[in-house]
Parts: sequence; structure tokens; C-alpha cells
Amino acid sequence: MTQEQLQELLEQVQSRNLDIPTAITRFKSLPFENVGSFAKIDHHRSIRQGMAEVIFGQGKEPEHLAEIFLRLHENSPNVLATRVAKEAAELVLAKLPEVEYHPLSRTLRWWSDRKIKGKGKIAIICAGTADLPVAEEARITAEVMGNEVEAIADVGVAGVHRLFAYLDVIQSARVCVVCAGMEAALPSAVGGLVSCPVIGVPTSVGYGAHFHGLASLLSMLNSCASNVTTVNIDNGFGGAYVASLINRL
Amino acid sequence: MTQEQLQELLEQVQSRNLDIPTAITRFKSLPFENVGSFAKIDHHRSIRQGMAEVIFGQGKEPEHLAEIFLRLHENSPNVLATRVAKEAAELVLAKLPEVEYHPLSRTLRWWSDRKIKGKGKIAIICAGTADLPVAEEARITAEVMGNEVEAIADVGVAGVHRLFAYLDVIQSARVCVVCAGMEAALPSAVGGLVSCPVIGVPTSVGYGAHFHGLASLLSMLNSCASNVTTVNIDNGFGGAYVASLINRL
Amino acid sequence: MTQEQLQELLEQVQSRNLDIPTAITRFKSLPFENVGSFAKIDHHRSIRQGMAEVIFGQGKEPEHLAEIFLRLHENSPNVLATRVAKEAAELVLAKLPEVEYHPLSRTLRWWSDRKIKGKGKIAIICAGTADLPVAEEARITAEVMGNEVEAIADVGVAGVHRLFAYLDVIQSARVCVVCAGMEAALPSAVGGLVSCPVIGVPTSVGYGAHFHGLASLLSMLNSCASNVTTVNIDNGFGGAYVASLINRL
Amino acid sequence: MTQEQLQELLEQVQSRNLDIPTAITRFKSLPFENVGSFAKIDHHRSIRQGMAEVIFGQGKEPEHLAEIFLRLHENSPNVLATRVAKEAAELVLAKLPEVEYHPLSRTLRWWSDRKIKGKGKIAIICAGTADLPVAEEARITAEVMGNEVEAIADVGVAGVHRLFAYLDVIQSARVCVVCAGMEAALPSAVGGLVSCPVIGVPTSVGYGAHFHGLASLLSMLNSCASNVTTVNIDNGFGGAYVASLINRL
Amino acid sequence: MTQEQLQELLEQVQSRNLDIPTAITRFKSLPFENVGSFAKIDHHRSIRQGMAEVIFGQGKEPEHLAEIFLRLHENSPNVLATRVAKEAAELVLAKLPEVEYHPLSRTLRWWSDRKIKGKGKIAIICAGTADLPVAEEARITAEVMGNEVEAIADVGVAGVHRLFAYLDVIQSARVCVVCAGMEAALPSAVGGLVSCPVIGVPTSVGYGAHFHGLASLLSMLNSCASNVTTVNIDNGFGGAYVASLINRL
Amino acid sequence: MTQEQLQELLEQVQSRNLDIPTAITRFKSLPFENVGSFAKIDHHRSIRQGMAEVIFGQGKEPEHLAEIFLRLHENSPNVLATRVAKEAAELVLAKLPEVEYHPLSRTLRWWSDRKIKGKGKIAIICAGTADLPVAEEARITAEVMGNEVEAIADVGVAGVHRLFAYLDVIQSARVCVVCAGMEAALPSAVGGLVSCPVIGVPTSVGYGAHFHGLASLLSMLNSCASNVTTVNIDNGFGGAYVASLINRL
Amino acid sequence: MTQEQLQELLEQVQSRNLDIPTAITRFKSLPFENVGSFAKIDHHRSIRQGMAEVIFGQGKEPEHLAEIFLRLHENSPNVLATRVAKEAAELVLAKLPEVEYHPLSRTLRWWSDRKIKGKGKIAIICAGTADLPVAEEARITAEVMGNEVEAIADVGVAGVHRLFAYLDVIQSARVCVVCAGMEAALPSAVGGLVSCPVIGVPTSVGYGAHFHGLASLLSMLNSCASNVTTVNIDNGFGGAYVASLINRL
Amino acid sequence: MTQEQLQELLEQVQSRNLDIPTAITRFKSLPFENVGSFAKIDHHRSIRQGMAEVIFGQGKEPEHLAEIFLRLHENSPNVLATRVAKEAAELVLAKLPEVEYHPLSRTLRWWSDRKIKGKGKIAIICAGTADLPVAEEARITAEVMGNEVEAIADVGVAGVHRLFAYLDVIQSARVCVVCAGMEAALPSAVGGLVSCPVIGVPTSVGYGAHFHGLASLLSMLNSCASNVTTVNIDNGFGGAYVASLINRL
Repeated sequence: MTQEQLQELLEQVQSRNLDIPTAITRFKSLPFENVGSFAKIDHHRSIRQGMAEVIFGQGKEPEHLAEIFLRLHENSPNVLATRVAKEAAELVLAKLPEVEYHPLSRTLRWWSDRKIKGKGKIAIICAGTADLPVAEEARITAEVMGNEVEAIADVGVAGVHRLFAYLDVIQSARVCVVCAGMEAALPSAVGGLVSCPVIGVPTSVGYGAHFHGLASLLSMLNSCASNVTTVNIDNGFGGAYVASLINRL
Repeated sequence: MTQEQLQELLEQVQSRNLDIPTAITRFKSLPFENVGSFAKIDHHRSIRQGMAEVIFGQGKEPEHLAEIFLRLHENSPNVLATRVAKEAAELVLAKLPEVEYHPLSRTLRWWSDRKIKGKGKIAIICAGTADLPVAEEARITAEVMGNEVEAIADVGVAGVHRLFAYLDVIQSARVCVVCAGMEAALPSAVGGLVSCPVIGVPTSVGYGAHFHGLASLLSMLNSCASNVTTVNIDNGFGGAYVASLINRL
Repeated sequence: MTQEQLQELLEQVQSRNLDIPTAITRFKSLPFENVGSFAKIDHHRSIRQGMAEVIFGQGKEPEHLAEIFLRLHENSPNVLATRVAKEAAELVLAKLPEVEYHPLSRTLRWWSDRKIKGKGKIAIICAGTADLPVAEEARITAEVMGNEVEAIADVGVAGVHRLFAYLDVIQSARVCVVCAGMEAALPSAVGGLVSCPVIGVPTSVGYGAHFHGLASLLSMLNSCASNVTTVNIDNGFGGAYVASLINRL
Repeated sequence: MTQEQLQELLEQVQSRNLDIPTAITRFKSLPFENVGSFAKIDHHRSIRQGMAEVIFGQGKEPEHLAEIFLRLHENSPNVLATRVAKEAAELVLAKLPEVEYHPLSRTLRWWSDRKIKGKGKIAIICAGTADLPVAEEARITAEVMGNEVEAIADVGVAGVHRLFAYLDVIQSARVCVVCAGMEAALPSAVGGLVSCPVIGVPTSVGYGAHFHGLASLLSMLNSCASNVTTVNIDNGFGGAYVASLINRL
Repeated sequence: MTQEQLQELLEQVQSRNLDIPTAITRFKSLPFENVGSFAKIDHHRSIRQGMAEVIFGQGKEPEHLAEIFLRLHENSPNVLATRVAKEAAELVLAKLPEVEYHPLSRTLRWWSDRKIKGKGKIAIICAGTADLPVAEEARITAEVMGNEVEAIADVGVAGVHRLFAYLDVIQSARVCVVCAGMEAALPSAVGGLVSCPVIGVPTSVGYGAHFHGLASLLSMLNSCASNVTTVNIDNGFGGAYVASLINRL
Repeated sequence: MTQEQLQELLEQVQSRNLDIPTAITRFKSLPFENVGSFAKIDHHRSIRQGMAEVIFGQGKEPEHLAEIFLRLHENSPNVLATRVAKEAAELVLAKLPEVEYHPLSRTLRWWSDRKIKGKGKIAIICAGTADLPVAEEARITAEVMGNEVEAIADVGVAGVHRLFAYLDVIQSARVCVVCAGMEAALPSAVGGLVSCPVIGVPTSVGYGAHFHGLASLLSMLNSCASNVTTVNIDNGFGGAYVASLINRL
Repeated sequence: MTQEQLQELLEQVQSRNLDIPTAITRFKSLPFENVGSFAKIDHHRSIRQGMAEVIFGQGKEPEHLAEIFLRLHENSPNVLATRVAKEAAELVLAKLPEVEYHPLSRTLRWWSDRKIKGKGKIAIICAGTADLPVAEEARITAEVMGNEVEAIADVGVAGVHRLFAYLDVIQSARVCVVCAGMEAALPSAVGGLVSCPVIGVPTSVGYGAHFHGLASLLSMLNSCASNVTTVNIDNGFGGAYVASLINRL
Repeated sequence: MTQEQLQELLEQVQSRNLDIPTAITRFKSLPFENVGSFAKIDHHRSIRQGMAEVIFGQGKEPEHLAEIFLRLHENSPNVLATRVAKEAAELVLAKLPEVEYHPLSRTLRWWSDRKIKGKGKIAIICAGTADLPVAEEARITAEVMGNEVEAIADVGVAGVHRLFAYLDVIQSARVCVVCAGMEAALPSAVGGLVSCPVIGVPTSVGYGAHFHGLASLLSMLNSCASNVTTVNIDNGFGGAYVASLINRL
């Protein structure tokens, strides 16, 4: 409930256009309406800012996912769904052929409002080719949230010299998102080369003593570069989401 | 080495003002000078921006820590040392009585340049009183890096209503740093109330199945609020450092 | 063996209606009959109280599960089977069309005695839609055990304001069962709003550093709300079972 | 804000005794006053019900702990502090000689209101003598919260027959709190003998592959007795707190 | 090489019936022949004692497993293969219809020499029906190694009274093998009732915080009954193997 | 309650020498008397067999430990206390100078009945000198329980040839107890050389990725020698206790 | 860029054969060309030394893997791909029938240059037959990198005497690669018999408390033989790669 | 026993200069003498090659350590003891003032034979100053084993450019030992720059989610540089020991 709405309601009471029991009823529901109003603000902001509503596809039935996507598509210029199986994607594409499905990152995106809202560039840096699905999820998210994105692939630390070729790109970014599996040393290396925030996305790429991403996660949390923060394993979406928030500041 | 410097150097070679062996020497040292120049830029930036050089005090001998602090103090308007034992602090204070020692967070700070460089406010939110040492480290760091800081203590999720009293403060911040131990639910709660980035700092406050911070760390990494990123356990400094970088963007 | 039975037996010995060797035989089997009598008491109580015998379906062959269900159905007004695969459910439904199968929670329920035995309401609160299968198992269990149940879904902590809309419901419950995955902050938030016992059911909903429910489990065990206890990961049945016991006190 | 207060406020607006800007100010602070009223309710309930305010002493400076204890002592007939070092206890006892300090459980208790509020008995069962400090914390907590307590010690499962001697006591309790370290089999054994809720408190008693309580914790979470729930390792207070809530229902 | 063989060989050298180069060749191969002789001794012992050669079937190709089984069958009166998939079993049964395949424990057994070699009985005790596959592997192993076996199923600690019905059986055994999943309290309970060695076999029966057998394993390692030792998770064969060795002493 | 006692009791009822209410009382306490009779049997057996009562000294107050030791000393020819601090030992030795204190293993032993009850020898084998405290605890335990012991030290697998020098000793033992830290390969090596049971005692000797004994424990649980079972980390007493039980069979 | 190349470039500038903008372009790309030149050097070395370019096949689409293999095959006399599924192998074999596919180790190898570059022999020692796939990957790698290889299988520590038969082979190797699962004691045993470096490759062969290779990994890291180093679980390639580097020194 | 010795022995038997019982005795002790001869060879090699006998000081009593050091000092030109507390060092230095004690690495070294036996240089590279104690242990070990050592400190990956300044040194080494804590990215970075073997020594330098070295260990085991192998956490000695073996090849 905005201050304007509240003023209007009180004026109606004062002018006796609204009887007190009815007003009480509306106030009683106020905390819920406050809740609803948060939700609405979120929704409005989503439309206003092109910040896509995001569907987390994992574990959702194909039909349910498709239905949610279609409903959001009606109200929002941009819609993003992550971790979408091919079957669910096909259900959506059958009805909305203009939607893009990215099989590598299993991402489904309706991206009609392509206005740039970020103030600078987001660099999305990927250690190895096997980390690409996560980096792609990050790139697709950052784009649909209105950012200019530079994606750099396969610049892992075992060939640290390759990174230097992209020094200009990396140093001109406003935020870096670094996706890395294995020993995940790349965020530290990037962190030492830039003065902007670096968001590390550990990936589950590895085997044996990698323990499904644990090795990469611990590596990033222990980065000796102070400008590195970390999100969950394989959470390319999350890394790009925070990067977008930062890039709009 | 900028393009201008390179052009100038090559012109000197062409015009024979620089002989080839000398030029080779300079080129050979180029990667190192690049390195050195990074280091210098860092150093200059530190002086120019008041971004304090930071000493990680843990494991350092009191005498060594004091000596490093004194040396940095000569060149820098602001110096910060974290995890400083009382003995080391006393060695510094004996020579520099204007330096502040904060026993709760075990932080030593020389803060002569108090110019604000951040564009907005950083909210530093603390779940319980036991998390205060970490939150204090964050506050002291954010201040010395030139930020306006709002510190809110003891608003843990078990009394989630308390948080609402500070909604204005939290929602007006440009970045939030949330320090929480135990089940560390606060970053998620804050993350749901703001649209800015939230940096979670898990603390080691807890016992038994807390496993020295692991419970809080996992909690934050799994936050259902998409705007939460995480740093290492008890790393108040790191949380505030990234927040400062974001606040200057 | 009740005191009455024992008295009767001794009277038969005393009156020589029972010779000593036979009596010894019956006493020798007494510990076993005690066992059997415990089982019988349990069984009687089950019939008397409508407390359903419960079949844990996981790992059981469809035929075996169906057979056990059918046998219990003969003796008990209410029968519950959890973690039942569709195949096993179909075997039962073919013979007993009045039995309900809930595919989301994979629960099979024969619920003919719907008398309420609990003294108050049990609130079953679910953090996200992905936690619904576990919450549904809890709801179905609590119902079949004779409780009035209020089920509230999708009130996770990242939108903590949503919880306030249900404050009346939650605060009027006699016990709360809270099912949550991810960072599992909801039991703490609920625990801070009510003075009744809260039973946390961590779910395996999450990925990466969630480690199949470990993050949620640790979160609940470390809850700063003192009224929270915890059961095993995904154990919706267990949570509701204890809640039912409490609600009958 | 009660309905009466709301009605009164709206009537003042309607009658123009309250101008709209002032009313708006009061409505804007409404969520906070709601919050404040929760806090007050909590406080009142504490006084009204003799539910002791509890101080978690671990990590608190002796002086701080003593000060908090003294302040609570002024307002509350019962005060409990857990994990209190001897130094802190002595500071309190110097001023309040009527306070009891229990060195084994390191608990400090001011227990002037000894009215029984629980409807039945709480059985506090302890597997081995080494688990006694945790069981004692539970007993002292349950008592100060107004419960009749039966404490049974040293009935671990390796001599499972000992438990049978206490069958009457255990089966007549309304709630059981079972403290056990090592393999922590006791909650399952007790759970199989009673139909009331059993709260398992794993202790850190063990060595080697006990991993500071992990073995006991996992054991309890995996109990095959459906009436067992679990609290954090060594959390005797928490176990007794929930048992008290249940016992008042 | 026995002392007799060595004496004979040296006598042949002395008497020049064996030339030195040939003798050297035989000595050079001595460590290997020692090895070979160990193997032979093992083999002979296997025939002599009916101690079956054992094939660990997991990960073996069906054809290979079948081939090894057939070859051992030619030389040995008893052959045991564990963790045998149905396909492999059928390959063997096609050729040797007298071999038994036990689908529950996935064990394949050729058991022609049924002489009893153990001095007493081995009790194989199983906590729940889900632990039966492991207990069955133990039973089948103990039998084929020449032991009289008493198998007791479904006497878990949650109904600890059931165990008492079998007190005679358990107390008359020379060794107990106890297979238990979940919280695995049974070995402790049995251990407290008998004075013979108890071999705990943790099973992977459980879910969530059971971590695939870890909970049961830690439980057994921390048993407060001093007569309990432990083998690997689900290692029914190993438990029975050691029990057999003990039973022959 | 033996059959004789039961017969007698029933005869008294039949002959009316015992009235029914009294008989009921005695039957009601029957499970407890069974329990008590177990306890007595244990006690008698302890005296009869010279099986020492054992005190686990860890965490016990010196005075308590000393008191328990003195009381057991009055009734038992042999008393053993493990993990005894020097202070506690001195309290005992001041009163009972004939008691032996072994500082390396921190064991206190009163060993007056030195009769051999084991049928063969127990070999106690120690991988490295750092494992000696655990091996010593095993040796002292095995001796006081009436076994002939052969202790072999420092025959770790990195110099596997050393083991062969003791082949005779090892192969003539009836049971082997093998104490090993680090990679704990020795139980497997010994297990391959003998046909008797081998009890592995993992020690906490190691550093870094040894994780306080976890590496050794896992190693033993995964031994490819089928005759190896395992006890808890550093549990030299437990290893020897089981070995003694086996050696008496 | 070698000093010669730099000298030549500067001479061209000085002699005006190279204009400054072009020179700048070349210098600007210098870090990248350095990168490229590293890559080239690697490539050249690969051709020169027969050090095969290696494709890690896991997670790669069959078509992509096949394409990469074909392209490398054009430029390199030897090509190795590890963890190759049968489908991908068949795509390659259809075009290049001279390529070998090893199903056991899932390795694809084009080995036309069979010149020996290693100075001595590499012994590849395998504890059990189940470890063979990893040992085979090591053997195939070591061969294609130009080493003389001795492969010894099934000499696990439980039959440690078998190892002695191969003492000559092992002691004459320049490097040993030891592949072992289960308790992985073999590297320590080998390490104690040789004075050359031993590279331990833990395998995931085991079950239960083996935790997918963790037990073997910890065992090797804690080896009491000082000449043992370790690579990741199941990393036969990595073990052989390092052994090859050592063997060329 | 060499072939020559065997021939001689058999000739003595043949010529009857050695009676058969004596020969048998010698053959019986042969495996042991083989063992003993290994030990002797080791000892001789130690003297011959200056390969220092090494004492692992952790957990040893100061007096014992000193005694062992003194005894080795009598026979060996070089003696090394690691993890030596100051007290133990002072006991040795009191008798042997020429011995060096290095407090940072807690290493005690008697280094009289300084002949170089390694064929090239060993580079010992240290990520941060806090890793220096481990790197120093490595340097001191490598020196005493007769290697030329280049020690490079503080070139961690967060300032990866610093590494390039030392490219010549690193690329000219025959083996690299890299000591790193925190995220331990340095071995990968070094591994990508050199073609020689790289031995990673994870250190316990870090806090929070570093878990006492686990993060660094996992990082190294998952290195994407194929030439990296790993030793135990903080095992500077082990890293240098293997590097020395390699450097002598």
C-alpha cells in the first residue's frame, strides 16, 4: 500500500465516503496487502526494468514448467527458465516459436525487450570448455537482464598466459563472473588482475577428489584475492543475477 | 606499458636514440615491468583512493606485524590490520597513540583520511550479539575504505519481526553485508526485502552440528534469495571489501 | 500380559486347573508373549485410536508391499504406506478402489476412520513448491492419524512477509511441522513467531553445496529458535507422526 | 495494533481529531508496532508463565554475563544461564548468594517461582555417566520451566536390561528427553517402549570415529523409532525446552 | 619350501645328483615358489577345510564371473560368489543346474561338502527386513564355510523386547554376526547380552542423513559394548568369514 | 529366573504357600530380576574368570577415578583403568603401591591373578613407534585378561620385509591385534599372511589429510584381507578385549 | 618470442623495413603471441617428442570428440583420448581403422611414432584385477609418450609375498606407477622396496566406507614411504604423464 | 643374497666345507637376511650418497629425539630432523653446537657433506609468506640431500604477474616443489609454465572453509595441469624428498 493509497483511504474515512467497518476490513488485510504490494512492486519492477521473472526448471514437470512460462510470457517482455529439459522446452516452443532454447545450458529464454539497463559491461569468464554450460547460463541470464556481456572461454590457469590476451576486456568490465571447475584457480587469477568485484561460480566439472564441485567451491571461498565472492556450485544464473544487480548500481 | 610508451620507445629505436641491446633489455623486462606497473598502480591507487593496505595479522609474530604497520603508516593515510592480538596492538600503540585498537574485532586501524568515496550507504547487519566481532571487522573495514556505514545488530531470524523496524535503513542501502552464525537464515530474509546485492558472511558462532561455521556457510550458499553471494567463514573483512568495491561503482 | 491375565493364570495354577509344566511353558514364552502382547497392544491401540499401521515402501517389492497393505486393510480402519511406487499402488488399487494414491508424495492411504483424535490443529508449513512432496507426506500422515491439519505452502524466508499473512493460522496451531530445503530458514522464522513446538523436516531440495539435504539439516539443528527439533531429511512422515503424538497429549 | 485501537484511530480521523499526516505516520510505523507488540507479548508471557529468560553463556565475558543475569533477576522470578564458567558464576554468587551454580552442567539458576506448570512428568534419561553434564542441563532447565522431572542415569543400551527396571517411570512420562553419546542407541530403545514423544540429545561423549558427536547425531536422526526427534549435539537445554513446551500443551 | 624339501635339495647338491646351476635356478625361484606355495597351501587348505574360494562378483563381466566359477567348481567342493547379477548367475546355472542362486542376497553357491567344521553355532542377527540381503549373504557364507548357523530376523532395537525371545539362541552362539542399518543400535544391544565376540555389519539401509551406511558404521565403531568389532558397510560376507575363522578356533 | 526357580514359585502358589498378590508382585519385577541376574552373572563371571573390570578414565575426575579403582580393587584380583592421567594414577599409587602405572599408554593395572585363561597366544603388532601407546594399551589389557601375548613393534609396511622376520610368531598366534596409523596398511599385510582373525586398531598417528585417524580407519575397513575386522580409532583396549574373548573360545 | 626474433624485429624497425604502426600491432599481440607461441612450442614439442596431445573424453559429445581426434590425427603422429565411450570410438574407427580402442580402459590411441624417449623403464603396478582399467589407462599413456613399460597386475598387499616375485622388475624401474583401490596399501609396500619415485593412483574400486576412492586417496597421502606422491582418484593418465616426464629427465 | 653368494654357498655344500644343518640355518634366515641386507643397503646408500637419515620429531619426547639425533650424527655426515620443538633442539645444540636449528620450519640439521648429487636445480616456490615454514622445510631437506635449490617466495596467484618475473628460474629447474595454502592455485599456474614435474605441497594456511588444509589439498589433486602430483598437507619434507629422488635420476 503506497502512501498515496493510504492518504486516499484515510480521506475517504474522513469524508465519510468509507464507513469504519469496511476500512477496518481493509486494514486488517493490510499486512497481507503489504505482502501483496511487495509482490506487485516486484512484478511492476520486473516489467519496468525488464528484469526477467525466472523459473527454476529442475524437478518441475514439463507441463507445469511450460504452463508457468506461457503465463509469464503474457505479462512480461522477458522470461527466463533455467535447467529446462528438452521435453519441456519443446512444449513451449510448439506454442511460442520465437522463444530460444539453448541446449548446452538447458535454458529457455523469451527476450523481446533488449534495452540495456546495466551501466557497464559484465565479463563472463570460463575456465575450461567443460564449464561452458554454466557460463552459458550466466551469459543468457545477464543478457536478458539488460547487460552488455563479454564472454571469454577456455582461459584456465594451467595456461595462465592466455588470460593476459584478454586483459583489456577483463579490466574494462564493471563486474566479472568467473565459472571454473577442477581446482578453480581462475577467480583468484582474475581477482588479482582487476579492481572490480569478481563473482566466482564453482562448477561440478571434475572427478574423483573433486567431490561434485566441493573442491572448486572451497577453492573460491579461500581465494587470496579479496574481491572474490562465491555462489553455489553450478549456479551460473545466480552469479549473473548478482552481477546484474551490481551493474545497475 | 601504454601504447604511447611503446610508440615512444619504437620511435627512439627508429631514430637511433636508443640502441637495440638497451631496447631488448627493456622489452625483456616488459612482462616484469607490466607486473611492477600493476603493483605500482595498486600502490598509487591505494594512496589516491585511500583504499587502505590491509595486513592479515593471524599467524604473524607481534614484532613483524608492528613493523609492517609502522612502515605502511609512513606512506598511507589509512592502514588496517585484522586479527591482531593484543600484544601486537600494544607494540604499535606505544609508538602511534593515534591508532585505534578494537579488541572485540581484534582490528588495528589508522584512519586519517576520512573522505567518503562510496556512492551510497553500506548496511552491515548482524544476526546475534555473538556475531558482533565479525560484523565489527566488516564495519571498521568499510569505514576505512571510505564508506558511510549503517550497522544493525541482533536482528536474527528467530525474531524476524525486529528486522522490519529497520526496513528503511536496509532498503536504502546500496549494498548489504550480513554476518550470521547458527542457521544463518538472515541473509535470505534480508535478500528477500532488498533489491541490492547482499554479501553473506557466515560466522563460526554455533556449536555441535555447526561444525565451526560449516552450517552457516552451507545455509548462505543455498540461499533461495538470488541476490546473495558468500565469502569465507568469519571473513568480515572480505565481505566489507567487496561491498566497498561495489559501492564505488 | 496384563495383570488380569497374570492373576487369572496364577488362579488356575492355584486351583489346579493348570498343571505346573504347562504353566512353565506359558511363562517361558512370557517374554515372547510380552513381546507379542506389546505388539498386540500396539495393534489394539492402532484400532482403538485410528493410529494407522505404517508401511515404509522404499525398497519393498511391489507385490510384497501390496500384500502387506491388503492384510493390514483387513484389520485396520486406516492404513498408510509411504514411498510407494506407482506399480505397487496400482496393484493395491486394482483390489481396493477406495484406497487413495497420492502421486506427488507417493503415499497410499486407506482412511475410513476419520474421527479427530488430536486436541488442536497441526500446521504443516512448506517453504517452497519443490518441498511439497515432503509436506504432502506429512499432511496425509497427520490426517490419517486423526488430526485437523492446516497446510500452508510456499512461504519461504526469502519472502518472509508472506509468512505474516498466515500468522493467525500458525499461532493457533498446537504443533507446527515445517518442511524446508535450500537454506531451510523457515523453521527458525516460524519458531520465532509461535510458542508451540516446531518440528523441522529438512528436505533434499537444493543442488550443489546442498549435499542432498545436509545444508537444510544442519540449518535446522542450529536453529536459534529454541522450540525447533529436527527429524531426518525428507522424513515428512516422521515429522507428522511426532506432531500427532504431541497433539494427542 | 488491536482491532479496538484501529477502530479508535479511524474514529479520530473521521472526527477530525487526528489529522491525516499524523495518522499516516502512525500507520507507517504500524508494522513496527506490530513487531514491538510481539516482543512485549513475549516478555509478558515470560513473566506470566514463569518461563525463565535464558542466557547462553558460551563466549560471553564473565562481567557481561553477570550483568545480564543481575538485570533479569530484577524482573523475573526465574532466571537460567547455561554454559557458565566458574568465574562468571562467582561474580553472580557474590551478589546473589541464593542463586544455585551447578558445576557439572555449568548452569546458573535463580529459581524462586517453583510452581508446576507442566501437565505431566518429563523423564530425562541418560545413557552413560559421561553424558550426565548434558542431562543435568536438561533437568535444571525442565525444572526451572515448571515441570516435574524424573531423571534416570546410566541405562545405556549395552546393558539394555537395566532400562526395563525403569519401565514404569518411562511409560508414565508425558515426554522423554534422552541424552546419549557413543553410538546413541538409547533413544531408539526408549522410543520403542513408550508412545509419547522422545527428544534425543546427542552428546559429544566419545572419541575417534565419534567425530565430536556426529556419530550420536546421525544415530538419532536415523532412529527406527518414529517418535524420536533430535536437537543439536550437547543441547540439553534445547531438549528440555521443547519438552517443557510439549508438557504444557 | 619346507625344511624337509630344503634338506633333500641340499643333499642332492652334496651328492652331486643336482648340478649347481639347476640348484641356483630353483633357489632363485624360491621366493616366488614360496608365494606359489602359499597359494597352494591356501588352495589345499580350501579343499581340506571346505573353506570355499570366494569370487567377489561386483564389477565383473557376467562371462568372466561364470568362467571363474566353472573353473573353481572343477577343483573345489564348495564355491561361493557374492554380488552376482542375475545374468551371470544364469550363465552358470545353465551349465551347473545344481548350483543355488539366492536372488535376495545375489549370491551364487556350489555347496557339495556340507561337513561341519565350526565348533559351535554362529548366530546371524538382522535388525530389520531391509537388512536381510546382507544377513543372507552372511548366512550363506557361514554355511558354505562349514558352520551351523542360527538366523534371527527383524529384532531391531526399537522393539528391543523382541530380542529377549531369542536370548537362549543368542547366548548359546559362539560368535554373533549382527547386520543393521538405520541407527544400527542392535550390535550394542546384543553385545550387552552375550559374552562372545560380536561382529557388526553396518548396512546401507536408511535414507537422508544415513549417508549410505555412514550412520550405521559410526554407530557400530562407537559401540559401548566392548565385544563389538566392525567390518565394511554391507559386507555380510566379511562378517561371516571372520565369524567362521573364530568358530574354528 | 531359572526354570527351577519358576517351578518352585509356581509350586508355592499351587500349595498356597505364596498368595497370589505376592506372586504377582514377584512376576511384575521379573524382567528386572532377570536383569539383575544378568548383572550378577556378569559380576560373578568377572571374579570367576579373572576378566578384569575396566574403568574408562577419560573425562573422569582424578578423585572419582581413584575411588572407583580402590573399590574394585577390594573385590577383584585384577583391575584395569585406561586413559588415566598422571594425577589420578598418583592418587591410587599413594594407597596401593603394588599397582602398576604405564605412562606411555596411560594405563593403571592391578594384576594379582596372573593365571592364563586364553588357549593360545595373542600377537599384538604395531606399525610404527608412534603407535606404541595404543599397542601398549592392547598388550596390558590382553595380559590382565589372562593371555599370553607376543608384542611386535615397528614392522610397518613401508619396510614390509621386516614383517617376514616375525612370520613364525605371527603365524603361530591364535588372534592378531594390529595397531597402525598413517596409511594403516599393516592389517592387510598381516591378514594375508595368517589364517586367524586379525583385529585392526586404527590409530590417530598422522597429520594433515590423516584427519585424526580417519585415513587409518577407512584403510582398515576397506582391507582386501577378509580376516580383518576393525574397532574405533585408538581403541587398543577394545582390540585386545575382543581378542581375549576369541582366545578363550 | 625469442631474443633472436626480438632483435630481428627491432632491426627491421631501425632499418625502416617495418613501419611503427605495424610493429606496434605485433608488440600489442606479443603477450598473446607469447601465449600462442607457448601453445606452438607445446605443439612443436608434441610433434618433436611424440608427446601425444591428449583429449579428456568425459562429458564430450561423441561427435565433438571424434572431430577433435580427427583434427589432431592430421598433425600429430600420436594421439590419445581417455574416457572415451564406445559410440565415440566407433565414429573415429569408422574413419581411421588403424586407431586402437581399448574398451577396458576406454582409451582411444593413434600410435604411429613408437620411438622410445624415456631413459629407463616405467613399472605400472596394479593391486587387484578391478584396478586394471586405471592401470591400463596408465600403461597406454606411458607407451604413447615413448616409454618402455612393465605392467604387473594383481600383486595387492593382502598377498604381499607375490610382490617379491617381481622385485627385480620393480627395482630396475626408473619410476613406478601404482594403481590401487580398497585400502590402497600397495604404494607404501612398493615405496619401501625401491628408491625411485612412486606415483600412487588411488582408484574408486571399493564399496561402502570406501566413499568412491576417498579411502584409497587418504591412504596414499598418508603413506609412510617418503617416495610416494599422489594424483587424483582414477587418474591413470595423470600418473603415467608425470612418470613420463620423470623418465625423460 | 646375490647370485655369487648363492653359488659360493652351494659350492661349499658340494665340497662339504659347509655341513647341511649350517646351510639350512643360513637358508632359513635368508628371507630375514634379505630383509637385513635391504636395511644394510639402505644404510650404506645413506652414507654413500649423503642421503640423510630423517627423524620425524612430532610426538617424540625431547630426550628421545636428542638421543636418536646424536646416535645418527656419529655414523652419518648429514642428519635431518623435522618438526622439532625448541626444547629438543636445545638439548642437541648443547652437545653439538655445529648443528643448525631453523625455528621457522622447526628443523634441525647436521650438514657436513655438502656435495651436490642432484643433476639439476630444484625450484621451491612458495605462494604466500605464511606458507614459508613448509617451504623452508622443503628447502632444508632438498639441500641436505645434495641439491642445488632456488627458493622463490610470495608469488601467489592473486598477483599472478609476479610469477612471470621468475619464469627463467622456474623453467630452468629440473623439478618444482610448490607450497601453497588458501586456494592453492599456484601449482596449476606453475604447472602450465613448465614441462618438468611439479610436486604440490598443500599447506594448512587458511581459515574457515579451508578446513585445515583440505581446500588446498583438493585444489592440487584437481589441478588441470597434468604434471602436478601431490603430497600430504604441510609435508614440505616429503615434497623435497621426492624432488631429490627425481633430481638424481
